[in-house]
Amino acid sequence: MEIKELGEFGLINRLTKDIHPVNNSTIMGVGDDAAVLHYTDKETLVSSQMFMEGVQFDLTYIDMEHLAYKVAMITMSNIFAMNGQPRQLIVSLGLGKRFKVEDVDQFYAGLNKACTKWNVDIVGGDTTSSYTGLAINLTCIGEAAKEDIVYRNGANETDLICVTGDLGAAYMGLQILEREKSVYYQQVEEYNNKVKEAQRNKDEKRLEALRMERAAIEGFQPDFAGKEYLIDRQLKPEARGEFLNQLREAGIRPTSMIDISDGLASELKHICEKSHCGCRIYEKNIPIDYQTAATCEEFNMNLTTAALNGGEDYELLFTVPIGDHEKIDKIENIKQIGYITKENLGTFLITRDGNEFELKAQGWVVNKN
Amino acid sequence: MEIKELGEFGLINRLTKDIHPVNNSTIMGVGDDAAVLHYTDKETLVSSQMFMEGVQFDLTYIDMEHLAYKVAMITMSNIFAMNGQPRQLIVSLGLGKRFKVEDVDQFYAGLNKACTKWNVDIVGGDTTSSYTGLAINLTCIGEAAKEDIVYRNGANETDLICVTGDLGAAYMGLQILEREKSVYYQQVEEYNNKVKEAQRNKDEKRLEALRMERAAIEGFQPDFAGKEYLIDRQLKPEARGEFLNQLREAGIRPTSMIDISDGLASELKHICEKSHCGCRIYEKNIPIDYQTAATCEEFNMNLTTAALNGGEDYELLFTVPIGDHEKIDKIENIKQIGYITKENLGTFLITRDGNEFELKAQGWVVNKN
Repeated sequence: MEIKELGEFGLINRLTKDIHPVNNSTIMGVGDDAAVLHYTDKETLVSSQMFMEGVQFDLTYIDMEHLAYKVAMITMSNIFAMNGQPRQLIVSLGLGKRFKVEDVDQFYAGLNKACTKWNVDIVGGDTTSSYTGLAINLTCIGEAAKEDIVYRNGANETDLICVTGDLGAAYMGLQILEREKSVYYQQVEEYNNKVKEAQRNKDEKRLEALRMERAAIEGFQPDFAGKEYLIDRQLKPEARGEFLNQLREAGIRPTSMIDISDGLASELKHICEKSHCGCRIYEKNIPIDYQTAATCEEFNMNLTTAALNGGEDYELLFTVPIGDHEKIDKIENIKQIGYITKENLGTFLITRDGNEFELKAQGWVVNKN
Repeated sequence: MEIKELGEFGLINRLTKDIHPVNNSTIMGVGDDAAVLHYTDKETLVSSQMFMEGVQFDLTYIDMEHLAYKVAMITMSNIFAMNGQPRQLIVSLGLGKRFKVEDVDQFYAGLNKACTKWNVDIVGGDTTSSYTGLAINLTCIGEAAKEDIVYRNGANETDLICVTGDLGAAYMGLQILEREKSVYYQQVEEYNNKVKEAQRNKDEKRLEALRMERAAIEGFQPDFAGKEYLIDRQLKPEARGEFLNQLREAGIRPTSMIDISDGLASELKHICEKSHCGCRIYEKNIPIDYQTAATCEEFNMNLTTAALNGGEDYELLFTVPIGDHEKIDKIENIKQIGYITKENLGTFLITRDGNEFELKAQGWVVNKN
């Protein structure tokens, strides 16, 4: 169905009619000039992020439902990274002409899945047309008690540097998706060349045979065997809110925290810069899944670079006092990767063979071996 | 300067280094995963709006500074329309390749002007590239005591319908801008045709003369004489927060309120729908500036339609108990335009000659006279 058949108000009504707030802090959600929220015993956290088609996402890899789930998780992840609980989400969409009502329905299905997972209410937003592509802006609002909020600037010398889950997988998932896309386009190009040649030769029999081949190419199935985890990490990232409860239950309060969107190196440098300190992390301690390692080998890429600079992991990176060492050890899927130093000691990675390399907040470098 | 010379973090530092929060509710602004706000004695209001190049704005009419001022005012206007005070703003920008650092500087200059006017703090945002054009999303956060918040749904039978300022001027300003743009393009086209003809005729003397004419066309000055107010209303709208204080001082609490972005008819229908009531407004009472009236005549457009459906006025539309009639009368620049009825009586305009026309939340219809 074309969006103009419903109109802006019709579309908004369709998308919001089944939204029923679950949070006490949501006094008034969708339907007025502004949402009304009640945060009288905690601090309010607000974070906004923009996602542009062709820059942050490629709709040849990801469908509308997964895209919505992903961008919602990314935005909620910012609230978790303050040690807060996300409560409300505001959704702005700029929709190019090719988008139908069904696409927007799918997008909202993905949003609702993400919001249900973390008990977040959709409380407003804006829908407009766009001259090109899809533009998305999400604003997530959350809460935390004043004494619970963890900033980037609280790391102290001797603190342990910890990270949840594993790193580099989402980036290697993207490499797989890009490879399969180029395999597909190569098949299409080869097919088109064969057809052109047969047409030149007026070879009717050959053209008939090629028509049969066409279905096979149209039904192209990307090969993700043995890479399922990587694809999942790229297309369906999860915000790591569950670790906040585990830390709280273990009596641990991080001294600084950030979520890993641009890669471990970049985020660790943010913490060090804001906290006026340095750091050492150990290459051997960086948590990496075996699918990530195997795929790096296959692509002849440097595994540590993928983990340091790949990005899109959305794991939590945080520091804790050194006295919490044993408590952290007991929590599954949290790894201690290094420690905080004085600022003048700089930010370095210690490699397996004991060399020190300065951390750079830069993008990917292909292994030249 | 190219944006890539600074990089994302460099650009953010440049734009935010001079931001100094002025509100007590701003605990932590730019620089972490989320802004931290303190709203422990009032309700929090949040509203988000997206603006896409070519849809909501045209950079051939408006420069970056005015654009920023305008979108900031529009977003703040949503908080005023809840009878609240805007306090914080979060800014997301998707920047096409043609935008330079200086363009973003100008944009922030406009934002800062708007924020200074209403004591609003910029507390965060996101900056990304865009494959085409400029995408803007603003989220405004504000506050109001619970008992002060005015929703769209509180209008009651016999309430008076009031509107601030005057209507239709921003729309007529847009007509002027579009006319001047087409005059300019027509001059360019005629010039190009003359050059082509001279080239065909190999008339060197004529070509020389035409080269002199070129400067005049490049220095084209649009003719806004006598339309300054309309241009101002289109390019530099003001949110109407000052009326909220005046109403409070006069002891008036509106029963319902909305700001006029899509035109009086559309917004009044929102109030009636949410409040389950009908209305009558008088054509003769709709406030219209003389420049708006004169320009409608010049363009052969229906003045009442411009005021009802033109939009972009950002005036406040509200209802008050009938007992407040005299108090309202004393406030300058607030006009009583009609009254609220039972729902089954519908939503109608009473024309100067006493006819009733149903209000339609539709766009512009050119006068067929």
